Amino acid sequence: FKIALCQLSVTANKERNIAHARKVIEEAAEKGARLVLLPEIWNSPYSNDSFPVYAEDIDAGGDESPSTAMLAELAQSLQITIVGGSIPERSGDKLYNTCCVFDTDGKLKAKHRKIHLFDIDIPGQMTFKESKTLTAGETPTIVDTDVGRIGIGICYDIQFQELAAIYAARGAHLLCYPGAFNMTTGPLHWELMQRARAADCQVLSCSFFLSKVAY
Amino acid sequence: FKIALCQLSVTANKERNIAHARKVIEEAAEKGARLVLLPEIWNSPYSNDSFPVYAEDIDAGGDESPSTAMLAELAQSLQITIVGGSIPERSGDKLYNTCCVFDTDGKLKAKHRKIHLFDIDIPGQMTFKESKTLTAGETPTIVDTDVGRIGIGICYDIQFQELAAIYAARGAHLLCYPGAFNMTTGPLHWELMQRARAADCQVLSCSFFLSKVAY
Repeated sequence: FKIALCQLSVTANKERNIAHARKVIEEAAEKGARLVLLPEIWNSPYSNDSFPVYAEDIDAGGDESPSTAMLAELAQSLQITIVGGSIPERSGDKLYNTCCVFDTDGKLKAKHRKIHLFDIDIPGQMTFKESKTLTAGETPTIVDTDVGRIGIGICYDIQFQELAAIYAARGAHLLCYPGAFNMTTGPLHWELMQRARAADCQVLSCSFFLSKVAY
Repeated sequence: FKIALCQLSVTANKERNIAHARKVIEEAAEKGARLVLLPEIWNSPYSNDSFPVYAEDIDAGGDESPSTAMLAELAQSLQITIVGGSIPERSGDKLYNTCCVFDTDGKLKAKHRKIHLFDIDIPGQMTFKESKTLTAGETPTIVDTDVGRIGIGICYDIQFQELAAIYAARGAHLLCYPGAFNMTTGPLHWELMQRARAADCQVLSCSFFLSKVAY
């Protein structure tokens, strides 16, 4: 079956980001995709200043989480499975970088909170500390969907072979790692890691993708 | 320090193979290499017919193992560390695919017997069963040398991340995988696996090399 990996240009306008993602998902389904994947943090600029502002209460749903409400609606209406990249999630007084998986019944089947937060400090090139605002997830996420058993990681999670090994041991058919890799250390790693996880785990495929950031 | 990865053309003439390896090692040391590595099965054609004929009793040493005697002699006289690729080893009534490591004192510091034998059957392209003549090794091999702590694997051993993870956990500085990969399934794997092991284990380097077979 067809898998669509959607690259999204992200703006500072959340409604526009949601409308854009909606359009891209509809196009993918029209072209026959049964599984549609979005990139990491697709509804918000990628910054510690933005995360608290753009964060949504996924568990509350509805108006409290317009980004995932759109995904739920489309999964059901288009009869597709969606690995919804990730958005900043507010849960109590904590923020997470969270991936939601919706199946063809429109129901939220799994929620993966990024386990390995990315803190980097390369003087003169790049400094970013996700852990300044985000809390790390604590559990692996493997989910049965209409298109198979999927293991989920977010971006830097791909660097840790143990997570992929756990998914392989639990019978995953597919590993999905929504990503928004940086361009300083990213290019050396993303293709290598994606291919290595797929070969080591002998899974059907190991997807990985970027969000293009334009803001 | 300099590491020499020696590619060797292998013939059906064992004495010639040994003389050729000697020459190449001497050249490497002359150019300043402190660590010299040979490929898998460098003293014998790569076939189940040849393994029993070319096999040597490494533990007996001396005239019973002219290939490793040469390595021991050169390691000491040239003051280099040698990861001696591999040769067919006879031990009792069993044959192994064995890598010997010699340090600058000329002593045999470690012997790695290939753990993961390579049996392949791709109709019309390649059929080979190492397990027809060889016995699998049973233990990981990590060795302290003058150039650092080295974890050893042979060819197909590189496909199993668990072995590299064990070496990383034990503090290896370097992983060495002498190889004689085939050209049917090899090219898709060897660079990927070598780079993935190095990145996943965060070791200084992960070497890997081929013997060119000409017979």
